[in-house]
Amino acid sequence: MRLGILISGRGSNFEAIANAIARRKLDAEIAIVITNRAGSPGLDIARERGIPVRIIASQGLEREAYDKLLVEELQTHDVDLVCLAGFMRLLSAHFVRAFPNRVLNIHPSLLPSFPGLDAQRQALEHGVKITGCTVHFVDEFLDSGPILIQAAVPVLDDDTVETLSARILAQEHSIYSTAIQYLVEDRVTIEGRRVRIREDERP
Amino acid sequence: MRLGILISGRGSNFEAIANAIARRKLDAEIAIVITNRAGSPGLDIARERGIPVRIIASQGLEREAYDKLLVEELQTHDVDLVCLAGFMRLLSAHFVRAFPNRVLNIHPSLLPSFPGLDAQRQALEHGVKITGCTVHFVDEFLDSGPILIQAAVPVLDDDTVETLSARILAQEHSIYSTAIQYLVEDRVTIEGRRVRIREDERP
Repeated sequence: MRLGILISGRGSNFEAIANAIARRKLDAEIAIVITNRAGSPGLDIARERGIPVRIIASQGLEREAYDKLLVEELQTHDVDLVCLAGFMRLLSAHFVRAFPNRVLNIHPSLLPSFPGLDAQRQALEHGVKITGCTVHFVDEFLDSGPILIQAAVPVLDDDTVETLSARILAQEHSIYSTAIQYLVEDRVTIEGRRVRIREDERP
Repeated sequence: MRLGILISGRGSNFEAIANAIARRKLDAEIAIVITNRAGSPGLDIARERGIPVRIIASQGLEREAYDKLLVEELQTHDVDLVCLAGFMRLLSAHFVRAFPNRVLNIHPSLLPSFPGLDAQRQALEHGVKITGCTVHFVDEFLDSGPILIQAAVPVLDDDTVETLSARILAQEHSIYSTAIQYLVEDRVTIEGRRVRIREDERP
């Protein structure tokens, strides 16, 4: 399976996916890393690993026009699955239709709680005792779409945004590759909003 | 600590609290069980255990008028802490002010996800992979108020509302008594929406 990864910043989830592939925990290949920001630190990580990168600046472009550039670039690289890793733009219906049930995102909360920006801060300010992270299929709405996998993370009394974010990030790095591997093994079925993962039938 | 428990139906969380007291896991006493429905099965459970019960029918009464009757009855029994256990009415600000930070509720979801009725069905239909239950302080809004404790519960691919509800209920029965015991031991501080539990200092 050929992955196209979209980042806007560090893309630490991109790096975790690359590591899972290197450790043969994930049978996939990163075909292209695309960022909408020229200065994304994730670009250097990709280049060091010999992964093709492309900067497609979003400034000044309408969403649909931008998304067409993205789709073209992803299709040029024969991408089967698009993985958002800290990509800070909402995707248009045009984009989503180009990759039906083939776009994933990871979000640092147990959705539907705390969608949008600063999910960890939202969780702390709401005073929840358990938060987590979610890998979900992407539709044209924010942090919506059927949920593939979630991990729970405790909130501690003395947590700051930084300590809580770090604890959640460790889980993100684990579940994103697991979710992609489910798709690689063709074990995923979607019925409405419910996503089922067939049992692993390997011996 | 003298507890007043409000139920509308079976009140299985009331029974779990009574069991925790009997097993000396909870240093409290149930002063009164009040229901707004004459046929509540929980009444028989209370009577069998020799716990005082009172039926205060809500039909035909304005919320504030009804809540005044509740407050009177609870104060007559010197109640320190009010525990809602499947009590199907929203409480007025009058009630909440009569027991400041002394009214608890348990809800079968990881709030703020899935407030209101049928939280387990909401979770299944949304397709979350993790849900749970929440003990929170009660304010005059629905399933709002600072959170004392939460427990996470996995959602399985073949879950029905019944199987998921049963798995959540087992956790409810555990965390409600734990939350009450935190208050008995005076270990709880509330800062805005964040509730902190001091370390247990017993040897």
